[in-house]
Amino acid sequence: MGVLETVTGPRDLQGLSDDDLTLLASEIRDLLIRTVATNSGHLGPNLGVVELTLAVHRVFDSPRDRIVFDTGHQSYVHKLLTGRVESFGTLRREGGLSGYPSQEESEHDIVENSHASTALSYADGLAKAYRIRGEDRHAVAIIGDGALTGGMAWEALNNIAIAKDSRLVIVVNDNGRSYTPTIGGLATALSSLRTDPRYEHVLDAVKKRLNSVPGVGPAAYDALHAMKKGLKDALAPQGLFEDLGLKYVGPVDGHDRAAMETALTQAKRFGGPVIVHALTRKGYGYDPAERHEADQFHAPGPFDVQTGAEKPKGRIWTDHFSEAMVDLGHRRKDVVAITAAMMHPVGLDAFERHFPERTFDVGIAEQHAATSAAGLAMGGLHPVVAVYATFLNRAFDQVLMDCALHRCGVTFVLDRSGVTGDDGASHNGMWDMSILQVVPGLRLAAPRDTTRLRELLDEAVLVDDAPTVVRFPKGAPPADVEAVDRAGGCDVLVRSGAKDVLVVAVGSMATTAVDVAERLTAQGIGVTVVDPRWVKPVDPALIELAREHRLVVSVEDNGVQGGCGAALLQALVAAEVRTPVRLHGIPQEFLGHAKRDVILDRIGLTAQHLARGIVEAMADDALPDLDAVERRS
Amino acid sequence: MGVLETVTGPRDLQGLSDDDLTLLASEIRDLLIRTVATNSGHLGPNLGVVELTLAVHRVFDSPRDRIVFDTGHQSYVHKLLTGRVESFGTLRREGGLSGYPSQEESEHDIVENSHASTALSYADGLAKAYRIRGEDRHAVAIIGDGALTGGMAWEALNNIAIAKDSRLVIVVNDNGRSYTPTIGGLATALSSLRTDPRYEHVLDAVKKRLNSVPGVGPAAYDALHAMKKGLKDALAPQGLFEDLGLKYVGPVDGHDRAAMETALTQAKRFGGPVIVHALTRKGYGYDPAERHEADQFHAPGPFDVQTGAEKPKGRIWTDHFSEAMVDLGHRRKDVVAITAAMMHPVGLDAFERHFPERTFDVGIAEQHAATSAAGLAMGGLHPVVAVYATFLNRAFDQVLMDCALHRCGVTFVLDRSGVTGDDGASHNGMWDMSILQVVPGLRLAAPRDTTRLRELLDEAVLVDDAPTVVRFPKGAPPADVEAVDRAGGCDVLVRSGAKDVLVVAVGSMATTAVDVAERLTAQGIGVTVVDPRWVKPVDPALIELAREHRLVVSVEDNGVQGGCGAALLQALVAAEVRTPVRLHGIPQEFLGHAKRDVILDRIGLTAQHLARGIVEAMADDALPDLDAVERRS
Repeated sequence: MGVLETVTGPRDLQGLSDDDLTLLASEIRDLLIRTVATNSGHLGPNLGVVELTLAVHRVFDSPRDRIVFDTGHQSYVHKLLTGRVESFGTLRREGGLSGYPSQEESEHDIVENSHASTALSYADGLAKAYRIRGEDRHAVAIIGDGALTGGMAWEALNNIAIAKDSRLVIVVNDNGRSYTPTIGGLATALSSLRTDPRYEHVLDAVKKRLNSVPGVGPAAYDALHAMKKGLKDALAPQGLFEDLGLKYVGPVDGHDRAAMETALTQAKRFGGPVIVHALTRKGYGYDPAERHEADQFHAPGPFDVQTGAEKPKGRIWTDHFSEAMVDLGHRRKDVVAITAAMMHPVGLDAFERHFPERTFDVGIAEQHAATSAAGLAMGGLHPVVAVYATFLNRAFDQVLMDCALHRCGVTFVLDRSGVTGDDGASHNGMWDMSILQVVPGLRLAAPRDTTRLRELLDEAVLVDDAPTVVRFPKGAPPADVEAVDRAGGCDVLVRSGAKDVLVVAVGSMATTAVDVAERLTAQGIGVTVVDPRWVKPVDPALIELAREHRLVVSVEDNGVQGGCGAALLQALVAAEVRTPVRLHGIPQEFLGHAKRDVILDRIGLTAQHLARGIVEAMADDALPDLDAVERRS
Repeated sequence: MGVLETVTGPRDLQGLSDDDLTLLASEIRDLLIRTVATNSGHLGPNLGVVELTLAVHRVFDSPRDRIVFDTGHQSYVHKLLTGRVESFGTLRREGGLSGYPSQEESEHDIVENSHASTALSYADGLAKAYRIRGEDRHAVAIIGDGALTGGMAWEALNNIAIAKDSRLVIVVNDNGRSYTPTIGGLATALSSLRTDPRYEHVLDAVKKRLNSVPGVGPAAYDALHAMKKGLKDALAPQGLFEDLGLKYVGPVDGHDRAAMETALTQAKRFGGPVIVHALTRKGYGYDPAERHEADQFHAPGPFDVQTGAEKPKGRIWTDHFSEAMVDLGHRRKDVVAITAAMMHPVGLDAFERHFPERTFDVGIAEQHAATSAAGLAMGGLHPVVAVYATFLNRAFDQVLMDCALHRCGVTFVLDRSGVTGDDGASHNGMWDMSILQVVPGLRLAAPRDTTRLRELLDEAVLVDDAPTVVRFPKGAPPADVEAVDRAGGCDVLVRSGAKDVLVVAVGSMATTAVDVAERLTAQGIGVTVVDPRWVKPVDPALIELAREHRLVVSVEDNGVQGGCGAALLQALVAAEVRTPVRLHGIPQEFLGHAKRDVILDRIGLTAQHLARGIVEAMADDALPDLDAVERRS
């Protein structure tokens, strides 16, 4: 029986010997590798925090002390130390453990959101609440150096620096990379903290030089040495944090558990906010991950444990976007690309190889991505900002006020839109097509297949007086669906029988809609399926089509509240078209994690569910008949 | 004839003598004071940047070089130097000069958005565009120390620090305050930069101490002096910016025009990004402003030039919220208050006086405001975050993912919601009731008068498992409107005659709706006016009321796209209620500046416009008659 099996909660860590703890670390790494090899998930980040997490749980008393993981995907070790060894095999499976902390799973978990740079703000609030309530509890935030590039982290540090009574410990897990190496001035500053020998170096230099001056001896050195404290404040490698007035401990070797415990204990005793700067290596202890330069097994799909070889993946939407961007870069010298610390995941790595001087990684900084893009557009270029759909929420104000108000031609490409599945509630890209509806002048395209992705990306970058958005889902694209006709700017995909039902299929739901049409046709219901291509603004042709049909059905992979269907409905009301409308989309709630297909089935976004609902609606007496529709239109 | 009249553009500044320039500064101050005394506007910030703006326009060549003002309200001097002296009397009046930069007004203006902390990102983009296009142009960003507390500014600095080839000059206009004194660790760091004598002090101390050691003389001092450069890097007061790798010039007296010109010329010649740190005094040169401790005449209403006495103002919505918060603070020990650098403008100053330990000013940091509030809620308190409605856009992701996903009881109070008028497009609070519709679990209240403000604020802070929002407009509240009946959670304000028209009046539009009802009743049309009080989620009682009427009309002081009316429409469609609906709100476009009443009239949100539209609709043959409605309901 291993050590890990004996750990039912953090308190079981107290009685373990150093040898036991070393063994435990090894067992944890082994289980992490084996589980992620099968289930997929985040590996590199968790291998990097094994000792760090052990030390945190030995020094602090969770859940009395609250441990907040930034970005959450490095909480696997924490899960194993808080009673979830047996269930760990269910990681990221439907009904199983979440890939992020989950309040439902454990009283030791607190922040479920996977968006970066939030932990310091949460911890600031928690520590202030405990002080006001007179509770002797600590808040511990664990945040990567990459997440410190996000503006929220700066806002929090600025406040924490003056919260002198807060029992707050910030563990900076510094592995020099977010996904890819961390960029920017902060990275430089951290890197100098990591290695800065200035303090000892300067004292040594002074000593040598004084000794070489005739008549100057040890006395002078001692006089200088008396100034050590004063000099140390200026010279010790505390830099950035010290400038803000934050107490700083480190740097500490994050893989030296005992050293980490010493640093954390000092920090705990201090009684005010403290930064503990831990140096770690992503992927530590697993050769294939440490060797993997690009992202050190940040989040692999299933892989072979021995070799680290990932199971072959098919081509995904991102790959097609990646190629389209390179092609675009050759044709349009004014196109520049921006990523927020996700060069590979959004597929801009190929563009960067071809056009390094036209590619910018801004760090985990969606706000700056959007507004610097506005500046680039004002300067005569056309930026393409590629982010995961859910992360655009971070830049809503900048899209609205910095891009749209100034009529800047900036194209936002939203990958992983709609239901993403495994990564849980905060990764689903189900908000963009609703909140962007309010942005004056913005145009939004949802390609149904990769041919349309190329077409619409081209059309988007032609717009130079307003922001444009192109959004597509996670995973493998469907086979192309060719249009049978055109109506306004829309593609008509199916026209069968009478004008009973108009199905407005947004983006990736087109394939499903064609399937729906086949099912309805088989039951004698006439169907028109139309893909608007550009879903904002509402195409006037859609309004005319709606007027000619007995029932309008919209289907989108986006929250149903205020989405494309709702915008169409509102346009129909404004035009006094009274055709009954059914809106289908993602129910407006936070979705638990499961495979994308499983979720789509659960929420009724499959051809079977949709067709059944339409057949029932068509049986409704209140629907207008075809004659009434013809009189109307 | 004064000097100012001879300045038709920045190039006219080149030939002026020092005496002329001093006279010019004085004339500018005089005109600023006289104009704002009549028109209202931003005074203190502009008085503080007279010499700074003169220096910028003498050193740089606008519009070839681009000058980006952060927050924009300190651009009046810039307007006077770029050909707008004659039109300055129209400041902030409809059809007159905007209170912010305006591309329509001048080729010298670029960023119109008044939201803070954006200038560095714009300038980063502009400078990169010029580099890529091979143009020899500079981008100059002018940003206050307060705006540096915003996360975007950090994201930008982090990127600018590594953009070594960018011709980018950042002028930090450091007056030690945003509206009220700037808070946080950054303020401490800047303050130490302002006054830090460490460098000379340390060298002096070393010299004295060495001289006092027997056998040590000037030789030793010289030896040390040889190390000056090395020491200087560590000791010179460059701190924060230097840590990021940014070239720093300063601090410079921002009221010494010649010194500013020297510093800016150095910065311009450097060829890479440079920070010029200017120390200024808000309100400089106008006694009443300099004396005014609270905000140094940040943005006064009309005032007396001699005494600085503001014309008496009536009580506004904010005053009622301010009192309600103090009352709440006495009754609820768990209520804490958060402002983002706007303690006075949002009325939390009274709460702070009563409960200083329960009040937090987080700086211009809406993201941190929201997420630290989530932390406070997790720690057992109930935070009230008070911000202007338009600024909540900055924290959309945090409201959604940090508050709502974690079911945190945080109450957001949105002041200046709806049409705000004078301050132009980016101040209007016309987005909140649309984008917040998508947030699962969030509840949103719009009080129609100050009695309801108190009621709904109380109800909002009782919710402890979801975020709540209470929003109200700018200016004077209307007289109370009492309910004649209740339907579900809604107040029925008018029931007159037959059930022809249901008017759903959101928040401040209730008074207008009652007026509409009187006009319709006079024409024999039966009207029910209902105030939903809580507009999200949609009250089921509204759906039943809609079913019983021939026409539903919604009226809201919010963008019509995806707002409360649209949410009601969507709920009606889901419930298969087919009563025709008319939606009234702010058209989905950026509104030019004018008085609130003028804009409401222009966009049709007055009783006269609304009543006329409804009368026309009632004449439409396609409307169901009362019998049909009765059969249906």
